[in-house]
Amino acid sequence: MASGSKLWGGRFVGDTDPIMEKFNASIAYDKRMWDADIRGSKAYAKALEKAKLVTAEEKDNILHGMDQGSEYFSNALHIFVLYLSLCVFYQELIGEPAGKLHTGRSRNDQVVTDMRLWLRDAISILKGNALQLITTMVERAAVEIDVLFPGYTHMQRAQPIRWSHWILSHAVALSRDVEQLQEINRRVNVLPLGSGAIAGTPFNIDREMLRQELAFDDISINSMDATGQRDFIAEFLFWASLCLTHLSKMAEDLMLYSTKEFSFLTLSDAYSTGSSLMPQKKNADSLELIRSKAGRVFGREDKEAMFDCFDTVHAVLQVTTGVVSTLKINPSVMEAALSPDMLATDLAYYLVRKGVPFRDAHGISGKAVFLAESKSIPLNQLTVEDLRTASPLFSSDVSAVWDYSSSVEQYSAPGGTAKSSVAAQVEHMRTWLKKQVQ
Amino acid sequence: MASGSKLWGGRFVGDTDPIMEKFNASIAYDKRMWDADIRGSKAYAKALEKAKLVTAEEKDNILHGMDQGSEYFSNALHIFVLYLSLCVFYQELIGEPAGKLHTGRSRNDQVVTDMRLWLRDAISILKGNALQLITTMVERAAVEIDVLFPGYTHMQRAQPIRWSHWILSHAVALSRDVEQLQEINRRVNVLPLGSGAIAGTPFNIDREMLRQELAFDDISINSMDATGQRDFIAEFLFWASLCLTHLSKMAEDLMLYSTKEFSFLTLSDAYSTGSSLMPQKKNADSLELIRSKAGRVFGREDKEAMFDCFDTVHAVLQVTTGVVSTLKINPSVMEAALSPDMLATDLAYYLVRKGVPFRDAHGISGKAVFLAESKSIPLNQLTVEDLRTASPLFSSDVSAVWDYSSSVEQYSAPGGTAKSSVAAQVEHMRTWLKKQVQ
Amino acid sequence: MASGSKLWGGRFVGDTDPIMEKFNASIAYDKRMWDADIRGSKAYAKALEKAKLVTAEEKDNILHGMDQGSEYFSNALHIFVLYLSLCVFYQELIGEPAGKLHTGRSRNDQVVTDMRLWLRDAISILKGNALQLITTMVERAAVEIDVLFPGYTHMQRAQPIRWSHWILSHAVALSRDVEQLQEINRRVNVLPLGSGAIAGTPFNIDREMLRQELAFDDISINSMDATGQRDFIAEFLFWASLCLTHLSKMAEDLMLYSTKEFSFLTLSDAYSTGSSLMPQKKNADSLELIRSKAGRVFGREDKEAMFDCFDTVHAVLQVTTGVVSTLKINPSVMEAALSPDMLATDLAYYLVRKGVPFRDAHGISGKAVFLAESKSIPLNQLTVEDLRTASPLFSSDVSAVWDYSSSVEQYSAPGGTAKSSVAAQVEHMRTWLKKQVQ
Amino acid sequence: MASGSKLWGGRFVGDTDPIMEKFNASIAYDKRMWDADIRGSKAYAKALEKAKLVTAEEKDNILHGMDQGSEYFSNALHIFVLYLSLCVFYQELIGEPAGKLHTGRSRNDQVVTDMRLWLRDAISILKGNALQLITTMVERAAVEIDVLFPGYTHMQRAQPIRWSHWILSHAVALSRDVEQLQEINRRVNVLPLGSGAIAGTPFNIDREMLRQELAFDDISINSMDATGQRDFIAEFLFWASLCLTHLSKMAEDLMLYSTKEFSFLTLSDAYSTGSSLMPQKKNADSLELIRSKAGRVFGREDKEAMFDCFDTVHAVLQVTTGVVSTLKINPSVMEAALSPDMLATDLAYYLVRKGVPFRDAHGISGKAVFLAESKSIPLNQLTVEDLRTASPLFSSDVSAVWDYSSSVEQYSAPGGTAKSSVAAQVEHMRTWLKKQVQ
Repeated sequence: MASGSKLWGGRFVGDTDPIMEKFNASIAYDKRMWDADIRGSKAYAKALEKAKLVTAEEKDNILHGMDQGSEYFSNALHIFVLYLSLCVFYQELIGEPAGKLHTGRSRNDQVVTDMRLWLRDAISILKGNALQLITTMVERAAVEIDVLFPGYTHMQRAQPIRWSHWILSHAVALSRDVEQLQEINRRVNVLPLGSGAIAGTPFNIDREMLRQELAFDDISINSMDATGQRDFIAEFLFWASLCLTHLSKMAEDLMLYSTKEFSFLTLSDAYSTGSSLMPQKKNADSLELIRSKAGRVFGREDKEAMFDCFDTVHAVLQVTTGVVSTLKINPSVMEAALSPDMLATDLAYYLVRKGVPFRDAHGISGKAVFLAESKSIPLNQLTVEDLRTASPLFSSDVSAVWDYSSSVEQYSAPGGTAKSSVAAQVEHMRTWLKKQVQ
Repeated sequence: MASGSKLWGGRFVGDTDPIMEKFNASIAYDKRMWDADIRGSKAYAKALEKAKLVTAEEKDNILHGMDQGSEYFSNALHIFVLYLSLCVFYQELIGEPAGKLHTGRSRNDQVVTDMRLWLRDAISILKGNALQLITTMVERAAVEIDVLFPGYTHMQRAQPIRWSHWILSHAVALSRDVEQLQEINRRVNVLPLGSGAIAGTPFNIDREMLRQELAFDDISINSMDATGQRDFIAEFLFWASLCLTHLSKMAEDLMLYSTKEFSFLTLSDAYSTGSSLMPQKKNADSLELIRSKAGRVFGREDKEAMFDCFDTVHAVLQVTTGVVSTLKINPSVMEAALSPDMLATDLAYYLVRKGVPFRDAHGISGKAVFLAESKSIPLNQLTVEDLRTASPLFSSDVSAVWDYSSSVEQYSAPGGTAKSSVAAQVEHMRTWLKKQVQ
Repeated sequence: MASGSKLWGGRFVGDTDPIMEKFNASIAYDKRMWDADIRGSKAYAKALEKAKLVTAEEKDNILHGMDQGSEYFSNALHIFVLYLSLCVFYQELIGEPAGKLHTGRSRNDQVVTDMRLWLRDAISILKGNALQLITTMVERAAVEIDVLFPGYTHMQRAQPIRWSHWILSHAVALSRDVEQLQEINRRVNVLPLGSGAIAGTPFNIDREMLRQELAFDDISINSMDATGQRDFIAEFLFWASLCLTHLSKMAEDLMLYSTKEFSFLTLSDAYSTGSSLMPQKKNADSLELIRSKAGRVFGREDKEAMFDCFDTVHAVLQVTTGVVSTLKINPSVMEAALSPDMLATDLAYYLVRKGVPFRDAHGISGKAVFLAESKSIPLNQLTVEDLRTASPLFSSDVSAVWDYSSSVEQYSAPGGTAKSSVAAQVEHMRTWLKKQVQ
Repeated sequence: MASGSKLWGGRFVGDTDPIMEKFNASIAYDKRMWDADIRGSKAYAKALEKAKLVTAEEKDNILHGMDQGSEYFSNALHIFVLYLSLCVFYQELIGEPAGKLHTGRSRNDQVVTDMRLWLRDAISILKGNALQLITTMVERAAVEIDVLFPGYTHMQRAQPIRWSHWILSHAVALSRDVEQLQEINRRVNVLPLGSGAIAGTPFNIDREMLRQELAFDDISINSMDATGQRDFIAEFLFWASLCLTHLSKMAEDLMLYSTKEFSFLTLSDAYSTGSSLMPQKKNADSLELIRSKAGRVFGREDKEAMFDCFDTVHAVLQVTTGVVSTLKINPSVMEAALSPDMLATDLAYYLVRKGVPFRDAHGISGKAVFLAESKSIPLNQLTVEDLRTASPLFSSDVSAVWDYSSSVEQYSAPGGTAKSSVAAQVEHMRTWLKKQVQ
C-alpha cells in the first residue's frame, strides 16, 4: 500500500481520532475468523484464476502464502488481527499477487462469508454437545426408570411420576433444539461471496465453483440482501436463548431438589463450590450459573454476540452434561415425599369409573381432602364411612387407590408416566439419537 | 357445580381477594380461542365415547351443545369468556354430560391444544399476507426493471443499481420469513391433548384418533413437556420480530426516499396523514408506523403476546402491501441522483482490466477522486491528462466508464444488478411463489 | 369542520386505507387521558384569553363545555375517544369557540402535556400503594421479631437469621423504589404546553401562568426537546421493572417457603387457587403471578406501555400487600429447620476469638464439618476430642457455640440480624415512613 | 492456606471439572477492581485494629503489603486477578496477618464494596465527559445562532428553525442525563462493608469509621439487602441506555444532514472512514457507530455489564464531542432548503390575527397549499386573488408572511426558536454548566 496504512489511502487527508480508531474496534472480533478467512480467500483465488484475473502462478503464490498464514495462526498464542493488518500480513506472505485478491470482492461479502463459514463449524460443535447431553439423559432415564417421586406444578406436589419421566421431559425439549439448529444451519450454509459491496461482482467470477469449493448448499439470490442481512446470526442468537432457557428450567428444578429441605439429590463435588465465610457451605454453583445464563440477553446481530453466544452455550452444555452424569439421587427420600393427597385425582377417577361425571367426582374428592385436613390425618387414613359422607359410592375397594405404583401405571397412553410409556419414550429418543449421528 | 362457582369448590373455604381475581386476568385472553376450544372439545368428546367414558347419546348431546355455542359466539359482538364462565356456559348448553367432558383432561392440556389450533390458523393467514406482499413486490420489480438509481451504504451514495434490485433485496428477505414460518408451523402442529396435567391420561383415550380428528401432524412425546412448554409461541414471537425488522428496514429506506431532499418517490394519500398545526404537512405516517413496529418487544411466551403479535404483523403486512403497490416513483429524479463519483469503482476496474492489481487501482482511482474534488469538478470532467497524473494507463477509452447503464450491466453474475441478473431473480421469485401456493 | 372529518381536510384528496386507520390506533390509548386533556384545555383557554386570542365570553363557553364533557366522561361506561373524535365532541359541546382552542397549540404539545398530567397522578397512587405495603411489612417485622429461621444463599442453608430480618431486607429495597419514584416525578412534573409542534408558540401565550394553573414545578427549556422526548416514560417503565423485580424476588422466596418440603408458611385461601384436575391442589398462584411480572418487558416509551405498566404495578403492589398481611408463619417448623452445620462459621469465630487467623479458623471448622459428615452425626455432636483432632484450641466451652439465639445476637452491628439491630431497622423504617406521608 | 489452593479447602474432597472452573469465570472481571479492593481492604484493616482483632503492627503490615500490591498492579500490563489468586497474592505480600483480613468479612460484602467504589469513580469520569460535550454544544449554538434551516417532523420539512435550536434540544436532553447520574450516584455511594455474608458482622467492627475512611455518604440499612442487591448497577445500565439513546437520536439526524441529498454539513475526515471497494466513499462511520450503540442491550446487573457499559459510554461521549466540534455546516444550503410551504402555518396565523378561528384558518391555508400544488408553483407565488378564493380576508399585507426570519422571530416564548429565546437557552445552559463544576 503505497499511500499510507489505510486501505482507502488515496482519498483521505485528515488523521483519524485515536478514540475513533478504538471505538471502531468491532473489527477486532474478526480475530477468531482467521481460519474461515483463509479458506474463503483460497477459494476466491481459484475463482480469480478461472476468470483470468490472476495467472496460475499468482494463484499458486496466493495459496502458498495462505497456507503459511494458516500455520502461523494455528501456532500463535494471541492473535490481534484487525481486518487491515490482516491485509498487510497477507501482502507480506504473498507479495504482489496479494493486491489482486480483492478484485471484485469487497469487505462486505468477504466478512459475511467468513462469518457463515465460522458459524457452520460452531453449529456442528454445539450439535455434538447437545447430542452428548441428550444421550446422557436418555441413558440415565433408562437405568432409573423404577424411581418414583412427586411431580410438581406451581412448586406444589401434584401427582406421582417417574423420575425418568422428568428427565425425558427435558431431553425432549433439547431434541427440538437440535432439530431447530439444523434448520438454521440450512439458512447459514448459503454462499454470499461474489456479491461485492452491494451491486454484485462485475467480473466473470464463477459463483457456483466458489460454492462447491467451500461446500455451501446454495448461493445467495440477491447481492444487496447477501451483504446487508445478518438474519442467520439473529436466528442463532434466538436459538441459543431458547436452548439456554431449557437448560435453565432443568437447573432450577435440580437446585430445588438439591436443597436440604427436598434432599432428592446430591451434586458431585466437581460441580459445587464453597463459601469464603461459611465452612459448611456446599453451593450448587454450577446449577446457579446454568440457570442464570438464560437471563443473558445477547447483543444484536453482530460478530461479538455470535462468539459470546457460542462460548456460553458450548460451556453450559458441557457443564450440564457433567452435572447430570455425576449427580446422585436419593430414591428413598424421593419416594418418601409422595403423600396420599397426591392421589386425590385418583380418588376422583375411582368415582368416574363408577359412573360419576368427572366434575362431580372432583368436588367429592375435594371434600374428602378437606375432611382429612380437618381431622389432621392423611387422606388415606379416612375410613370408608368418612368417605361415604362425601359420596355413597365409596366402598372397601377404595383401598386399592392408595398405591403410588398403581397410580403411575395408569398413565400408559403415549407420553404418559407409566413404565411402558416411559420405556417407549426412551426407545423413541434412542432411535432419534441414532438418526442424528448418521 | 354444587359447592359454588369455582371449579375447585370442594377444597376451599376462604374468599378470593377481588384484586387477585382481576390480577389473574390472563385467562381473559382465552376469549379469542373459543373456536379452537370448541373444535378441541368436540374431538375430545368423540375420544371419550371411544373410551366408553360417555355414551353415544351423551357424546351427541355434547356435540350438539358445542355447535350451538359456536353459533352463539360467531354472532356475539363482545365475548368475555373467562375459562370458568366457559365451563358454566357449556353446562347450560349441554346439561349433565358437560360434567364428563373433563374426564382425564386438565386445563393444562386443553388450553395448550387451543393455543396450537389457533396459532396454526393464524400462521396460515400471515403466510397468505406475506405472499401477497412478495407478489406485489416481485411484479413491481418486473415492470420497473429499467429504472436506475443510487445504491447507498452508510446512507452515502455507493454504486448505481436498479430500483428493482433494491425491491428484490427486500422480497428475498421476506421469502426467508415465509420459509421459516413453515418450519415453525411443523413444531406448532403437534397434539398435546391427552397429556392431562403432567402425568398423562389414565383412561383409554386414543390420542392417535384425536390427532386425526384435529388434523395435527404428530402427537407430543412426553406429557410434562407437552403441558409445560410454550416454545412454539417463543418461536412465533421471534419470527414476528425478524419479519417486522425486514419491513422496518424497507420502510426506513422508503421514508428517506420520500423526503423532499431525496424526492425519489411519492406516497399515496391513502398512506399519509397531515398535521393538526401545519397545513402543508403530508407525513409518511404509514412508513413511520411500519418502521417503529420492529422496536416492539413482544412479551414472553404467553397468549396475550401471541394475539398482540399476530394483530401487529397482520396489519403491518397489509399496510406495507398497500404502500408498496400505490407509491409512485420519480425515475427522472432517481437517475439524476446518480453522480460520476459513484463510478470510482468502475474507474478502478478499468485499470484492473489493463492488468493493475486491484489494490493499486483502488489507490489510483482514489487519487482521481481527490483531484476532481480539488478542482471542484465532477469526476467525469477530468481530462485524460488529469487522469494520467494518477496513472499512465489511462487513455481516451476511459470515457466509456462514465455510463451508468454500462456500469450496471457489468454485474451479471447471479445475484447482481445487471438487467439479466435482476430478471433472473424475478423469475426465481415467481417460481418460488408458485410453489408456495400449491 | 367544513371540508370533511379530517383535521387536515384542506390538503388531502385521496381516501385513507381502512387498515391504515386501524393501524394508526395508538391514538386510541388517549382514551384514559380525557381528564388530563380537559384540565389542560381549560388552562389553555385561560392563557388564550390573557393573550387576547379569545374573548372572556369565548373562554367561559370553552370552560363550561369542558365541564360538561368532564361530567359526560366520568359517567360513561366505555369511552372510545380518538383524538379526532374528541375534537368533534368538544366542538359540539362548545360551538364556535372550540375552533380557537388550537390556536398556537399542536397535537404534539397537547398530548405530551396530557401524558405528564396523567402520569403525575399515577405516580402518586403507586407511591401510596408502595407505602402501604412497606408499612405492612415493617409492622409484621416488629411483631414477629423473635422468630428465627435459616437464612439461605444459593438456596442452601447459610446462617440463622431472624424472620424479621428477611422481611426488612425486602422492605428496604421497596423504600429505595419510593425514593426513586419521587425523583422521577420531578422530571415528569415539567410543563411542555406552549411548545407548539417543534418551534414554540408564536402568540403571547403566558407559559408561567399555564404552569401555575396546572401546578407543574417547571416549564420545559427547549420546544423541540419538549415535544419530542419521552424520557419520563422510559424512566417510569424502568422504575416499574426494578420495583417488580423486588416483588418478584420476595415472591420467589415465599413460594419456596410455602412448599410442602419447607412448610415455613401457609398462604391465605384468598391468595391461592385450585386445579381443575387435582382436587387436593392449593397453588400459590398469587405468588407465581407476582414473580412472573418481573419478566414482563414493557414496550418502549409510548402511552400504551405507560398505562399497562401502571395497571400491573398497581395490582401487584396491592396483591402483595394482601399476601403479606394474611400469610401465616409456622415458627416451630422454621426453627426446626436450623441445623448445627449452619453454625460452622460460629465455630470458626470461636477460634478467632482465641487468636487464630480467620483463614485458618475457616479451614479447621471445615475439617470439623467433614468429620461430622464422615461420622454421619450433626456437627454439634462431635466430642471435644473429635474437635481437637482439627485444632488443640477447642475446649469444653465450645458447647456455648451451639445456641442459635446466641449466634444471632452476635450480629449487633448496624444492619445485622441481632434483635437490637433488627429493632433499630424497624424504627428506622417507621421514621422514614412518617416522613413520606407528611 | 494449608489444605490446598481453594479457600474452602477443608470441606471438599472431589476435584472441580475444568470446564466448570472456566465457566465460573465471572470472577475474572474483578480484575479491573484491584484499586477499589485495595482501598477497601486498607480501611477494613483499620477497623479490625479498632476492634482489637489485629494488632497495630499487623495492621501496619497489611497496609504496607497493600501499598506494595498497589504499586505492582499500577505497573502491570495484564492483570489476571481471580478472586482466589488475589488472596494468595496478598498473603505473599503481607504474610501471616493476611489470614486475619477476612475476619467477619465475606466475599459478598467485599465484592459489592469494591463495585461501589469503582462505579463511583466511573460515574465521576462520565459526568466530566458529558459536561464537556454539553459545553461544546452550547458554545457552538452560541456562535451559530443566526443560521436558519428546516425543522423536520416525520422526516418531512415542518417549520423554519434555528440550527442552534436543534443543537440545544439535544444539549438539554444530555443535561437531564447528568442530573439523573448524580441521583444514581447517591444510591451508589452507600457502604455495604460490615454486612458479612447475609447476617451482618459479629465482631465489634465500626461501620461508621469504615464509611468515613472510604468517603461513603451512608451505610446500608440491612445486611441481607446490602449483599444481595445490585440495583445500583441496574440503574447505571438503564442510565447508559437512555444517554446512548439521546446520542443516537442526534447521530441519526446528523447522518441525514450529511447525506449528499441534504448536504447540510460535512464530517471531519477524522471521524469518517472509506471503503475497501469504492474509492470515492467517505462514510459517516462515527455517526453510524454512535447511532448503533443505543440498540446495545447491556446484560443484567453484573460486573461484566458494568465495565462494558462504562467503556461504551466513555468512548461514545468523547467521539461525539469530537464529531460535534469538528463538523462544518453549510449555511447557504441549509437556508436554501427552506421552502414557502413551510410557512403554511404562518399563513394560517395571518388569518388568526384577523380573527379567524384557528381550525378554519388551518383549513383555508391547506386549500392554498393545494391550489399552489395544482398550479405547480411555490406557495408564495400565489397572487392575492388566488388566495382570496380560499378566504376574502387575504390582502396585500400577506406578502409579509413569506419571510423566514420573521417567521422564526415569532417564537419568542420561553423554549421557542426566536433569537432572544435561543439566546436565553444558551444562557440557561451556561449557568447550569457552571453549577455542575462547582
